[in-house]
Amino acid sequence: MTDQTDALDRTALETRGISGWAYGLEDRVRFYEIDLVRHVNNISFLRWFEVLRVRYFLDYGLSDYSHSDSDPQLVVRHQTTDFLAPMHMDQRYVVVGRITLLKPTSFVLAAAVFADGMLRAQGETVMISLEQDGKTRRPHKAEAVRKIIKCDAPEMQT
Amino acid sequence: MTDQTDALDRTALETRGISGWAYGLEDRVRFYEIDLVRHVNNISFLRWFEVLRVRYFLDYGLSDYSHSDSDPQLVVRHQTTDFLAPMHMDQRYVVVGRITLLKPTSFVLAAAVFADGMLRAQGETVMISLEQDGKTRRPHKAEAVRKIIKCDAPEMQT
Amino acid sequence: MTDQTDALDRTALETRGISGWAYGLEDRVRFYEIDLVRHVNNISFLRWFEVLRVRYFLDYGLSDYSHSDSDPQLVVRHQTTDFLAPMHMDQRYVVVGRITLLKPTSFVLAAAVFADGMLRAQGETVMISLEQDGKTRRPHKAEAVRKIIKCDAPEMQT
Amino acid sequence: MTDQTDALDRTALETRGISGWAYGLEDRVRFYEIDLVRHVNNISFLRWFEVLRVRYFLDYGLSDYSHSDSDPQLVVRHQTTDFLAPMHMDQRYVVVGRITLLKPTSFVLAAAVFADGMLRAQGETVMISLEQDGKTRRPHKAEAVRKIIKCDAPEMQT
Repeated sequence: MTDQTDALDRTALETRGISGWAYGLEDRVRFYEIDLVRHVNNISFLRWFEVLRVRYFLDYGLSDYSHSDSDPQLVVRHQTTDFLAPMHMDQRYVVVGRITLLKPTSFVLAAAVFADGMLRAQGETVMISLEQDGKTRRPHKAEAVRKIIKCDAPEMQT
Repeated sequence: MTDQTDALDRTALETRGISGWAYGLEDRVRFYEIDLVRHVNNISFLRWFEVLRVRYFLDYGLSDYSHSDSDPQLVVRHQTTDFLAPMHMDQRYVVVGRITLLKPTSFVLAAAVFADGMLRAQGETVMISLEQDGKTRRPHKAEAVRKIIKCDAPEMQT
Repeated sequence: MTDQTDALDRTALETRGISGWAYGLEDRVRFYEIDLVRHVNNISFLRWFEVLRVRYFLDYGLSDYSHSDSDPQLVVRHQTTDFLAPMHMDQRYVVVGRITLLKPTSFVLAAAVFADGMLRAQGETVMISLEQDGKTRRPHKAEAVRKIIKCDAPEMQT
Repeated sequence: MTDQTDALDRTALETRGISGWAYGLEDRVRFYEIDLVRHVNNISFLRWFEVLRVRYFLDYGLSDYSHSDSDPQLVVRHQTTDFLAPMHMDQRYVVVGRITLLKPTSFVLAAAVFADGMLRAQGETVMISLEQDGKTRRPHKAEAVRKIIKCDAPEMQT
């Protein structure tokens, strides 16, 4: 099976007119993402941000979602979103993400949705890294940190 | 059929130890609101905020969701949420909301979730009132404004 | 906190004009359960059946959803549903369920949705009971079997 | 933007080892489609069937989802599903569909999910075609009927 739904890198995104991002996913609006106002429901954008960040974490090695002691629980603490323009049934879109601030046991991930050349929604998510006990802070995996620095060049704080 | 799932008013909320709010709904966590980390998924909190505000708009007369020209489209422009403590399967909770800032064609709605005496999540949603064309600003219904002022005493801006 | 959202028993259901069932839940249609046709989406009925059966399993002691070795995985094998009449935003409804056929490591659960005195949807779900390995069949807990026989009087097969 | 997420035709499906179907969509399991048992939730399969059939109806011209008087409401009356094997986070899959029985104002649509060379779920959905009043039967569009006969060779009944 070909990797048709795999992530878009910086070059593939620039080809689609989206610059400043190194990681994205492309899809089309689904029937169940529309609400009775007949636009994409606000929460569908947040579902796309969730799908984006889970794939990002898997691809960058931040988490393997194994729920084992060698893996963190990545938990959302704060989220802010701007809904800028409506979207409709079956519309193609690209959702992108990047880590903009990296601390030893937390980070900020920015995300945005583009469709037909227009920014539709954008947001920031503050996440913390915990042990499987859900309480103790846990440092990020070193290899993931290297890849994030290389791809996203985030602000670093200690 | 009795009104078992109707909104809680200021008195009913205070009985449950929740003060400072005049409108709330009581429910229990559903199976599908849990994710593979086995906590309530972040987006489930936002679903509860959505359910809360739609019921509030119906009860206060801000919108009847008739999609007719005599009714506004109430659109989310900005949303910010703090996720403060995890929640689990079948847990009882109360979600509350109030309008904290009222402008002629927009408002800010604060919301929060309480469970077992603890604040679990809180957020603010900025909404605007549009005609059915989805573009032209539309003033709020006068009767709804009176009820909001009476129940929530919001800051007023012109 | 009072038990406002607890299950309805045979008597409470008969008071609401629903006879032949011993377990039900009462609720109102939520905004996100409506689709762009502006009726309750078919899948929302299946969500209500899921909520109903999870609460039933907890209340009857078939599973405690602890994911521990002393508890089964209850897995859906087959499901059939009739969608009989549309439902709309904010409508009150009752969803009911009963086990109609009980085998040592499986069962059939019938469910139905009533609103405004009319049957809206009905279905049957075939479920099997597995160990936590997701493969080995596991007999039901004896106490749950006794309660099911007493409340639902299912056909028994060995 | 390229059509990366477009439907797979008979040839593309056979390349993936799936024969007997002329219409399919390829995707990967999303985080929110997993439940607390850590498998794909049963209802997620039904979401995929819904996405599949809406795209099929758009592509074959059965409905344009314009909600105008020149377009039908396609309503689900009956649905049956077999859940045959579990699926997991991030797994690739193909969902396929075909109309197996075509009547003047109704039809039966079969659907299936394949992943890693194995049939995971299959089902049948009985749908009827109504006018926008939601009551009067409405014949299918002639062009859609021709395309369905050509691609799916359904049993025909009058």
